[in-house]
Amino acid sequence: MGYTDVDKLAVNTIRLLSADAVFHANAGHPGAPMGMAPVAHVLFNKTMNYNPKNPKWLNRDRFVLSNGHACALQYSLLHLAGYKLSIDDLKAFRSLDSITPGHPEAHDTEGIEVTTGPLGQGFCNGVGLAIAQHHSSAKFNKPGFDLINNYTYVFLGDGCMMEGVASEAASLAGHLQLGNLIAIYDDNHISIDGDTNCAFTEDVVLRFKAYGWHTEIVDDGDHDLEGIEAAIKKCQAVTDKPSLIKLRTTIGYGSQLQGTGGVHGAPLKEADMKQVKTKWGFDPEKLFVVPQEVYDLYHKHGAEGAAKEQEWEQLLEKYGQSYKTEATDLKRRLAGDLPEGWEKTLPVYSPSDSAVASRKLSEILLNKVHEAIPELVGGSADLTGSNLTRWKDAVDFQPPSLGIGDWSGRYIRYGVREHAMGAIMNGLAAYGTILPYAGTFLNFVSYAAGAVRLSSLSQVRVIWVATHDSIGLGEDGPTHQPIETLAHFRALPNCMVWRPADGNETSAAYYVALTSKHTPSIIALSRQNLPQLENSTIAHAIKGGYAVHEAEKADITLVSTGSEVGICVDAVKYLKEHHNLTARVVSIPCFEVFDAQPKEYRLSILPDGIPSLSVEAMSTMGWERYTHEQFGLNRFGASGAYKDVYKKFEFTPEGISKRAVATVDFWKSVPNIRSPINRAFQQLI
Amino acid sequence: MGYTDVDKLAVNTIRLLSADAVFHANAGHPGAPMGMAPVAHVLFNKTMNYNPKNPKWLNRDRFVLSNGHACALQYSLLHLAGYKLSIDDLKAFRSLDSITPGHPEAHDTEGIEVTTGPLGQGFCNGVGLAIAQHHSSAKFNKPGFDLINNYTYVFLGDGCMMEGVASEAASLAGHLQLGNLIAIYDDNHISIDGDTNCAFTEDVVLRFKAYGWHTEIVDDGDHDLEGIEAAIKKCQAVTDKPSLIKLRTTIGYGSQLQGTGGVHGAPLKEADMKQVKTKWGFDPEKLFVVPQEVYDLYHKHGAEGAAKEQEWEQLLEKYGQSYKTEATDLKRRLAGDLPEGWEKTLPVYSPSDSAVASRKLSEILLNKVHEAIPELVGGSADLTGSNLTRWKDAVDFQPPSLGIGDWSGRYIRYGVREHAMGAIMNGLAAYGTILPYAGTFLNFVSYAAGAVRLSSLSQVRVIWVATHDSIGLGEDGPTHQPIETLAHFRALPNCMVWRPADGNETSAAYYVALTSKHTPSIIALSRQNLPQLENSTIAHAIKGGYAVHEAEKADITLVSTGSEVGICVDAVKYLKEHHNLTARVVSIPCFEVFDAQPKEYRLSILPDGIPSLSVEAMSTMGWERYTHEQFGLNRFGASGAYKDVYKKFEFTPEGISKRAVATVDFWKSVPNIRSPINRAFQQLI
Ligand SMILES: [Ca+2]
Ligand SMILES: [Ca+2]
Repeated sequence: MGYTDVDKLAVNTIRLLSADAVFHANAGHPGAPMGMAPVAHVLFNKTMNYNPKNPKWLNRDRFVLSNGHACALQYSLLHLAGYKLSIDDLKAFRSLDSITPGHPEAHDTEGIEVTTGPLGQGFCNGVGLAIAQHHSSAKFNKPGFDLINNYTYVFLGDGCMMEGVASEAASLAGHLQLGNLIAIYDDNHISIDGDTNCAFTEDVVLRFKAYGWHTEIVDDGDHDLEGIEAAIKKCQAVTDKPSLIKLRTTIGYGSQLQGTGGVHGAPLKEADMKQVKTKWGFDPEKLFVVPQEVYDLYHKHGAEGAAKEQEWEQLLEKYGQSYKTEATDLKRRLAGDLPEGWEKTLPVYSPSDSAVASRKLSEILLNKVHEAIPELVGGSADLTGSNLTRWKDAVDFQPPSLGIGDWSGRYIRYGVREHAMGAIMNGLAAYGTILPYAGTFLNFVSYAAGAVRLSSLSQVRVIWVATHDSIGLGEDGPTHQPIETLAHFRALPNCMVWRPADGNETSAAYYVALTSKHTPSIIALSRQNLPQLENSTIAHAIKGGYAVHEAEKADITLVSTGSEVGICVDAVKYLKEHHNLTARVVSIPCFEVFDAQPKEYRLSILPDGIPSLSVEAMSTMGWERYTHEQFGLNRFGASGAYKDVYKKFEFTPEGISKRAVATVDFWKSVPNIRSPINRAFQQLI
Repeated sequence: MGYTDVDKLAVNTIRLLSADAVFHANAGHPGAPMGMAPVAHVLFNKTMNYNPKNPKWLNRDRFVLSNGHACALQYSLLHLAGYKLSIDDLKAFRSLDSITPGHPEAHDTEGIEVTTGPLGQGFCNGVGLAIAQHHSSAKFNKPGFDLINNYTYVFLGDGCMMEGVASEAASLAGHLQLGNLIAIYDDNHISIDGDTNCAFTEDVVLRFKAYGWHTEIVDDGDHDLEGIEAAIKKCQAVTDKPSLIKLRTTIGYGSQLQGTGGVHGAPLKEADMKQVKTKWGFDPEKLFVVPQEVYDLYHKHGAEGAAKEQEWEQLLEKYGQSYKTEATDLKRRLAGDLPEGWEKTLPVYSPSDSAVASRKLSEILLNKVHEAIPELVGGSADLTGSNLTRWKDAVDFQPPSLGIGDWSGRYIRYGVREHAMGAIMNGLAAYGTILPYAGTFLNFVSYAAGAVRLSSLSQVRVIWVATHDSIGLGEDGPTHQPIETLAHFRALPNCMVWRPADGNETSAAYYVALTSKHTPSIIALSRQNLPQLENSTIAHAIKGGYAVHEAEKADITLVSTGSEVGICVDAVKYLKEHHNLTARVVSIPCFEVFDAQPKEYRLSILPDGIPSLSVEAMSTMGWERYTHEQFGLNRFGASGAYKDVYKKFEFTPEGISKRAVATVDFWKSVPNIRSPINRAFQQLI
């Protein structure tokens, strides 16, 4: 231990750097940084192993700021520690195109592990990082090669503690006995509405005990550096439980408003800034001051970290000599590349193959592909038998002591915790050695909307296996039948939404999802059987849209996805027989991928001169971008046998034909019908 | 107490009715009904006060089946108890257009309080019902008139227990000391993935103690009717805490597969059905059998309930003599009508009034309207000072013992618990005496997507005050700036999404939201100031769309919402000066309301013959329904001062004009431009 005046100076420097950043930006949150500076200093200067010159070192300790609004703290630490973050970057806090945005974004700033701010998410990311660490240790460590043994540290405040998503993850983390996870709860009794007494009076420590966590309490988080370090060491020593440290701090410590809501989300007043600086022996007129001895202290710790990495790289080198396959595998995983030839394991179908539910097609695929892609780690939110997400001989990821799996297991039982599942997947993906997928009903991906949004924003590769994707789920009824869900996630930037129509489209969906390193995917899959289509191939479908049924001089293009494509193909016959109309059929399993094709290609699929009708048994919203008319369901579904429900809402060859005829009639009078692919200008994407 | 063989027979009848319903439907969940039949019998035959002939009696005890998949149980009970649910309805379980859908839907079936099935929601609805009861008691009860004192009972299983939304509500309920709430946890150790040991090993009772709940444990929930009743009585006696009863049951009790996942979500096999019936002395060949003595038992309890209501109605009558105002108010609330003349309190603005942020306009409105509408009960998820949801002299809804509010308070401090807030509002609205609204950032309404969906499906009037509605929030950056959010909720059926552009539009949004008895609303409000528009009036805006700026022989229609409408008005000048183009401007603050106007009106606003361009600083998805071209943001935003962010993405008069020119050019060659209002056929809504 042995903390000196330099440490005290360092703590105050962190407090003031953070307060200065907020003051200079005239926006932001000084309170939590000033309160949490002591524990942050202990972590970043004593406890944590990291090399600021290589922020991607695999075995670095992970740090997550779940209370992301306190990011002035994190930026200050990254600066002191020697990461690529200058005083000028601190001065640019919260200004346009800076690497110091209002909340930390992993893809913007070196040293930020995960994108946080939306409360509760970071804590769950931390659980994901810890799962990934436990799993990777089990996979790669060998006798004498303790290659992967890092800790994951999470800061969180009252806000994160109140969010249900964090409760879900805390319960799962306790169950999983994640010994290398240490969460530090900033118990400052203040949230935006003032004293937490107004809404949050539960016994947090007791709650975490109930989840199976080890807990510690530090009473004087404002000064007691020794106590903080001792608590962390005790937590490190507990290897069969995650740990929570409840740290009593004073929000905005040092300010005249310390301990009140007044310092939570607004800059300190100028006089107050000067008051604190004077009190702590800093020049009251200067901003962004770092005493040289503080830099020295941090650079010494950074150099130690660099040396540790050096040692580790040598260990890895030696490991590679004894365990060549494992070392090669590890390096490949870290690059994000899939094993060569993996795509040969993708199932391929021909039209004569029997009709199969796409959730089942997904299961068949996972049964094959998982062998070729060892980093694939699956799971489900308690719907394994319905989502069909578990391959036959999968081993569960479980603490070995439970006797129902082990750390090397590749199937995670998330429990009924969709939101945490999504946020945990973000952590799994961020760790670097895992490619996560997980299942639930499409309708309940919405429970995880907050996490899916951050997958998209932070550009991580996670895959949702979203089964029971429409009124086709039948009897469970409108509470479970998605209507708005596809529109929602299609509108979310950098999120691929797939709705495959058959076997080859399912393989294509997985192909693109697995190879898109910086984009999450949602694959919507049917409960009911779907026929294999005539013109469907993986090569066609990976373009996001293609003609399933082509026809010369067609009167209309029917455009559809998933289970409705086959019905459109049947409608072609009906239209010819009953109305002497010729129809072509286009499948667009993924808007986002289709949009990325050259305009020429898109126009060949949705050409000028022909009216088009979209057919999808959910909200029509968004289909106007591709078609002239839309047949969908802008109301809730119904409980009943799925065929009855389809019939009720007229998603039948006859019902489609009725609307196709209306479409042809309506557009008859328009000369030179323009395809909606033609637009006046390009979108901002 | 005194349970007899008839009670045992009744319990088995409930078990078999439920199993028969599932067997006959060949789909559904027999396990939980067979396990929970004993406690259900105690509740419905001993404990609960209700009148099956008047399911809307205000002071009835509320029952919520949070594990809604077990609804065969609830339907069986409603039948036995004498509600409007026949044996034929049980036979129609899960079939199209029945009143016995796959999950219970409040607007379909008498005696169902709230729509459940999506896990965790019902529990939170129960918390809402209990808050409503506490609040209404404080408002209406008088010495000698204990008018409102009902209990709320909630059943929940492991699934609900694992969902974060329920954790949020449990924490809040503990804080609020909701003494009349009793939750009964079906601890059957089984979820869909099998033994809960695979994902859920926390100590639930300890967790609830940590939340501040009273807890009871009943070890033999399969048989111990006395023990169950005694536990409920103990819970009733605890008036300053909500109560949880952990009830150990055997899932699928009686079946050969009892105690296993095999009975969770699939019908019993025929032989198994016969086996159970034979074992319990029922005719193995018959389905849907109710022994007369069981009917008699239930009808006796129903008659007692009817008598209690009779007594209560007399009490209300007497109450009306002493407290005329209160009685009139209560009856009016129950009818869902607002007080006469309330709309006169809506603020009205003229163009010369200063620019004001719409979140502030909302605050001004709430400060006036709350006096006229006493049933309005507000709140916020810990963002009161940002959402501006609290009127000046509001009293917080708090247990009086905390000294920071009281039961009659009309402002709820929800804490950082958006999802629970949404689900609790559904319960508040379902109680009958409260019109709830609550605030958070628009981006975090997504955390509550599961609850908002159920507001829409179950047709309840709740209002989201969703501030910080775009990149206009500035520095907080992309983690907080909505892009997909409006598209998401616009695609959700029966959900009104408003984005008012100024003061009168804000008043219009509230007017429609407050008077729509069967539709929830989301009102998206700006952080930044917005000018008062020329042609904006409440009368115009309540049509959902109208011309803000009209022009003869216009070259283009600019169509916009919220903060971008004012920029479009500025663009009109720019277009004239720089491009000699004449533009008109249309505001569509609410798609759903505009869609409901006569076609003639809609065509007058978006006429044929003119190209149109939508302008909204978020996803363009859905705008193709109204306009020919779309200017939006199909990417994530950026952290920076809001004016810089608007400039970066070109939401300026210049940037709009650039795209308007492109639109005019692009559509020049098209004769007789057709308004997108014209469609080939009507949508299913
Ligand atoms: Ca706090
Ligand atoms: Ca269970």
